[in-house]
Amino acid sequence: MSSPLGVVVTDIRRGDPAVIARLAEHGVATVHEAQGRVGLVGPGIRPIQQGARIGGTAVTVLSWPGDNLMIHAAIEQCEPGDVLVVATTSGSTDGAFGDLFATALKARGVLGLVTETGVRDTADLREMVFPVWSNGVHSQGTVKATAGSVNVSVTVGGQLIRPGDVVVADDDGIVCVPREEAAVALEKSDARVAKEDADREAYGSGAELSLDRKGLRTTLEGLGVRYMSQEEYGR
Amino acid sequence: MSSPLGVVVTDIRRGDPAVIARLAEHGVATVHEAQGRVGLVGPGIRPIQQGARIGGTAVTVLSWPGDNLMIHAAIEQCEPGDVLVVATTSGSTDGAFGDLFATALKARGVLGLVTETGVRDTADLREMVFPVWSNGVHSQGTVKATAGSVNVSVTVGGQLIRPGDVVVADDDGIVCVPREEAAVALEKSDARVAKEDADREAYGSGAELSLDRKGLRTTLEGLGVRYMSQEEYGR
Amino acid sequence: MSSPLGVVVTDIRRGDPAVIARLAEHGVATVHEAQGRVGLVGPGIRPIQQGARIGGTAVTVLSWPGDNLMIHAAIEQCEPGDVLVVATTSGSTDGAFGDLFATALKARGVLGLVTETGVRDTADLREMVFPVWSNGVHSQGTVKATAGSVNVSVTVGGQLIRPGDVVVADDDGIVCVPREEAAVALEKSDARVAKEDADREAYGSGAELSLDRKGLRTTLEGLGVRYMSQEEYGR
Amino acid sequence: MSSPLGVVVTDIRRGDPAVIARLAEHGVATVHEAQGRVGLVGPGIRPIQQGARIGGTAVTVLSWPGDNLMIHAAIEQCEPGDVLVVATTSGSTDGAFGDLFATALKARGVLGLVTETGVRDTADLREMVFPVWSNGVHSQGTVKATAGSVNVSVTVGGQLIRPGDVVVADDDGIVCVPREEAAVALEKSDARVAKEDADREAYGSGAELSLDRKGLRTTLEGLGVRYMSQEEYGR
Amino acid sequence: MSSPLGVVVTDIRRGDPAVIARLAEHGVATVHEAQGRVGLVGPGIRPIQQGARIGGTAVTVLSWPGDNLMIHAAIEQCEPGDVLVVATTSGSTDGAFGDLFATALKARGVLGLVTETGVRDTADLREMVFPVWSNGVHSQGTVKATAGSVNVSVTVGGQLIRPGDVVVADDDGIVCVPREEAAVALEKSDARVAKEDADREAYGSGAELSLDRKGLRTTLEGLGVRYMSQEEYGR
Amino acid sequence: MSSPLGVVVTDIRRGDPAVIARLAEHGVATVHEAQGRVGLVGPGIRPIQQGARIGGTAVTVLSWPGDNLMIHAAIEQCEPGDVLVVATTSGSTDGAFGDLFATALKARGVLGLVTETGVRDTADLREMVFPVWSNGVHSQGTVKATAGSVNVSVTVGGQLIRPGDVVVADDDGIVCVPREEAAVALEKSDARVAKEDADREAYGSGAELSLDRKGLRTTLEGLGVRYMSQEEYGR
Repeated sequence: MSSPLGVVVTDIRRGDPAVIARLAEHGVATVHEAQGRVGLVGPGIRPIQQGARIGGTAVTVLSWPGDNLMIHAAIEQCEPGDVLVVATTSGSTDGAFGDLFATALKARGVLGLVTETGVRDTADLREMVFPVWSNGVHSQGTVKATAGSVNVSVTVGGQLIRPGDVVVADDDGIVCVPREEAAVALEKSDARVAKEDADREAYGSGAELSLDRKGLRTTLEGLGVRYMSQEEYGR
Repeated sequence: MSSPLGVVVTDIRRGDPAVIARLAEHGVATVHEAQGRVGLVGPGIRPIQQGARIGGTAVTVLSWPGDNLMIHAAIEQCEPGDVLVVATTSGSTDGAFGDLFATALKARGVLGLVTETGVRDTADLREMVFPVWSNGVHSQGTVKATAGSVNVSVTVGGQLIRPGDVVVADDDGIVCVPREEAAVALEKSDARVAKEDADREAYGSGAELSLDRKGLRTTLEGLGVRYMSQEEYGR
Repeated sequence: MSSPLGVVVTDIRRGDPAVIARLAEHGVATVHEAQGRVGLVGPGIRPIQQGARIGGTAVTVLSWPGDNLMIHAAIEQCEPGDVLVVATTSGSTDGAFGDLFATALKARGVLGLVTETGVRDTADLREMVFPVWSNGVHSQGTVKATAGSVNVSVTVGGQLIRPGDVVVADDDGIVCVPREEAAVALEKSDARVAKEDADREAYGSGAELSLDRKGLRTTLEGLGVRYMSQEEYGR
Repeated sequence: MSSPLGVVVTDIRRGDPAVIARLAEHGVATVHEAQGRVGLVGPGIRPIQQGARIGGTAVTVLSWPGDNLMIHAAIEQCEPGDVLVVATTSGSTDGAFGDLFATALKARGVLGLVTETGVRDTADLREMVFPVWSNGVHSQGTVKATAGSVNVSVTVGGQLIRPGDVVVADDDGIVCVPREEAAVALEKSDARVAKEDADREAYGSGAELSLDRKGLRTTLEGLGVRYMSQEEYGR
Repeated sequence: MSSPLGVVVTDIRRGDPAVIARLAEHGVATVHEAQGRVGLVGPGIRPIQQGARIGGTAVTVLSWPGDNLMIHAAIEQCEPGDVLVVATTSGSTDGAFGDLFATALKARGVLGLVTETGVRDTADLREMVFPVWSNGVHSQGTVKATAGSVNVSVTVGGQLIRPGDVVVADDDGIVCVPREEAAVALEKSDARVAKEDADREAYGSGAELSLDRKGLRTTLEGLGVRYMSQEEYGR
Repeated sequence: MSSPLGVVVTDIRRGDPAVIARLAEHGVATVHEAQGRVGLVGPGIRPIQQGARIGGTAVTVLSWPGDNLMIHAAIEQCEPGDVLVVATTSGSTDGAFGDLFATALKARGVLGLVTETGVRDTADLREMVFPVWSNGVHSQGTVKATAGSVNVSVTVGGQLIRPGDVVVADDDGIVCVPREEAAVALEKSDARVAKEDADREAYGSGAELSLDRKGLRTTLEGLGVRYMSQEEYGR
């Protein structure tokens, strides 16, 4: 539903830190698969660093383009273990976030930033190890003049994120897990990892092809895929 | 929250047809402004025709890319006055929709299509006056092989649309009005139109500038904007 | 295989005009489907007019970006019923083609242009009814300074087009049919149209849903898609 | 040079209306070529209508993204024969301009709009015949909260436009002619048109190929382009 | 020519491993230049790692978007020294490839992946030193439901790649060398490197400008380029 | 103003090296803010390396797409402390620049390259520590056939850069400071850094929120932003 502008919600519910931490360990691809291939932020939001992997509770910001007023307002709403998630009311690549914000957020125990804007001071952000996922790097400064909201539902990269949802981010992107479903997602992630470990061993040793292990020869046959020589194929 | 795959919801609630019809008359820009500058589908979804303006109830589809199976399933869920809204689990420009679908939907009284995919048979669609908003035109055919959902919440062009919400679409794009808020949105739209009519008269006659009518000279002064001659400006 | 630069091939083979004319009547979407869902130029090449539908033999040009020398060379190689197809060695939106080229090509009986560059004089092109599909409209002038080729294989919008292949273009885009396969593609197109006519009647009268006509209820069931009420779905 | 924010220049110099009117008649492609293949706004700024052709004096606006305050300020600076040119300090597709602005500008004799933002009310704009070139169509509303400038140099689509420069716009895009060079550009445009008329006659009658008329066979030979049969070419 | 769907060709011909290895040493830019400035995959396919350089035989895959079934089928067709090349029938950024595939391919001696899709598990892929060039990073999971082909001709980034062709990839991108032309391309690459080594010494020591060494002063003069002072230039 | 093609200006004025060096130390974001939030090259021009920071005098090149002739001409115009800035007359991603150019420029004391084209030999460029900002990486070779200019005003990423202007580039992008304003920009940058150091200390210790330090609570109140609980907010 349309998120209204001009609201700061102050008492969002957060999930179980132990569950969130273990989802973070599993990483984006595993959690996405485990919860039924949903929840991904689109591929336009990319990390500015390599090798970071975080999981935390979404504190959301809905900002006007070219304006970072509501990020200032959001800091106060953050608690240790949170991840700041910033959306804009329309597309923007401005550098709405830099090292001063990161300094303030680190002081409150915030784990990182996911933003549908640009960011700046990227060398500093990497040096201070405050991980950031953004739609680009741009130094364009912003103003503090227009109302937005904190802790309303937003969409980032085409994915709905509600305040309090779990956000996992790593080199592969960002996945959102609804707060109420975090425990189930973790359980399924554990199961998936176990299965993949067995697959990895089978494939790595060359003992078995996925065609056989997954029964895909039947699938190919059912779809009418034909094996033929170059001569038969004839072009 | 993440929409699950593999579900067809069969009994969505619809809004008041009279309210929806009047929202459609107001058009996208007015309704967007009236409900507080929210609710717009992003500018990447464009009409394939010029001059159409519709308003209806969203029947939503979440499809796999390259697959239109769930559009087939959605037709049965449509009623007169509905607008079909199609999202995909990841980006796709395939021509998932053509004149056969439009024929079936027209037979059920569906008013038009908003889709985050491509479409084809566009000359036919225009000729049969079935209005379509899509992310492009492409003839690429699709298969019917993978599960998706009907009547779950989706995001299209970064905008959340829930089944049963009101969708208004015209040459300017698409706006979504939450079903519960349609009556209030209509009231505010009426008020906005009245105000704009007065503005239009004032500006069209040259009687008044918006700088004066909106009190913006004070705003400019407060922001420190300086009026100067080319000579003073000096470049 | 990589097409060499600096070659003009002068004696390409052309297909059967009667077959080509009937493929054109079927249009892009039908021919694409009929030949097994292949052959489409990507959706980035769009018509500058509405309502045109052509089919002809490809005379191909491979140009340097910002240079239209080889289009000059290609005119001489064109015969009535041909379609000029222009690719560049790297991405370009320059207006490499305008009304003077169209005048010369019309004089030779050429049916239209498909180009991976920009075009200009678009109002004139529409007025003189010379249909054009391009990657954009841009007035940027070009030079005549660098070698390219005429009648070598090119890729346009990700689709390989060989000189002599059949090119069909309409509001939905462009499809390429290998010269050797044109007759078979026509036969399959005819069959497809017959089938679709029957479908159209069934759907338009509301007599039958595609779910039933195509046996898709079984597909949905096999994929585990569940029908449920809003209450059961629970969100 | 960097355009400062917070300035309204009130006394820009305008060119000779007779010269401007005749440049407009020549259109974008001709003027661009005539002044040495420079001056074009990039292909991302497109008309929302078909068939319009205008030429006028640029009144420039530099706006903050998501903010149309300075367009309000610019109206007062406009005179009959002007074209409003809007740039933003960073990328924006917001609908910063609609029919109310067009009403006010028409009342002042302004000929049209070129903007690096989105626009809305496009059906109304077409109906009232106020031609617009924009980077898209989007209904997103804007605020009036941040300082920008009027009548400073801006870049639109990568092209520098200074207040007082001549702007010509048609279906092919937009070209800027420096005010001081308008008379020379007109002279060269006249000459070019005469030459092209002769070319058009030669090509349209089939009397001559551009290869011969432009002496391009020598160019091809100098570049080592070889003519060969399919057999010689060998692939 | 359009590549048919539903075929696995099992006996592609491969080139001379010694020639391929030496082409790989030369790298993409050199091989591209040496074979006449052709053969490049477009700049949208980028490495996920820095510093890798590989050369091998293309085993090609044509997949449906959102579907990795044919990658499973392709593994069996791979031999040591091959490079897997994946195209899709229409645009897709899904994460069709991850560490399990890489494990299986490494076990067969495959050198790397070039794909017109997204990839995931990128941290793992870098750690296991399996080099990948893709159109992005995205975790979106895929299904195994739709037929495609293995070892048919495909286009990737606008470049035709036939099974058995040589593919060289490094930080600068990817170049394809037709199998039949690999020996000649190597010879020309060797010659080019020798010439460039001499150039590098001349330029690095400051002994000579390329203007002189390449005789470009004559070119500039022939094109009418004028040298002038700021005062003469006058703006 | 339109930059004419076919000119090499030989005696540009340069700024004070000491001022330039200190601007470089401040970096892009600080200088951009200090000079009033203007001067940035758009976010599409990105570094090919991480951690470089340079500041120098712009020697500008205006090239034809697919042609690097004028870069050859520009080398002779470069002096120690310069930064080469390359624009094209229309969009191009070709690899117009590689390690041989970098070798020649290093020999003349040039600090780096900012280009609106692609580049190649990127591994070599990083190894020889010649920093580059480009619109992409692509190996596509270029010719030396068409006139352009050296040391005329150009726009890069939408930003006007005049020969002799100061260019600062780092991980965050590129900012241009007009030569005449460099001393003032430095002064303001120094002041800004002092202020930000105090902010950083206040925020990093958790002693103060920016909401309080910047007086933003009043701003929020003035804009009507309401604080409320989840229960009050009601969705």
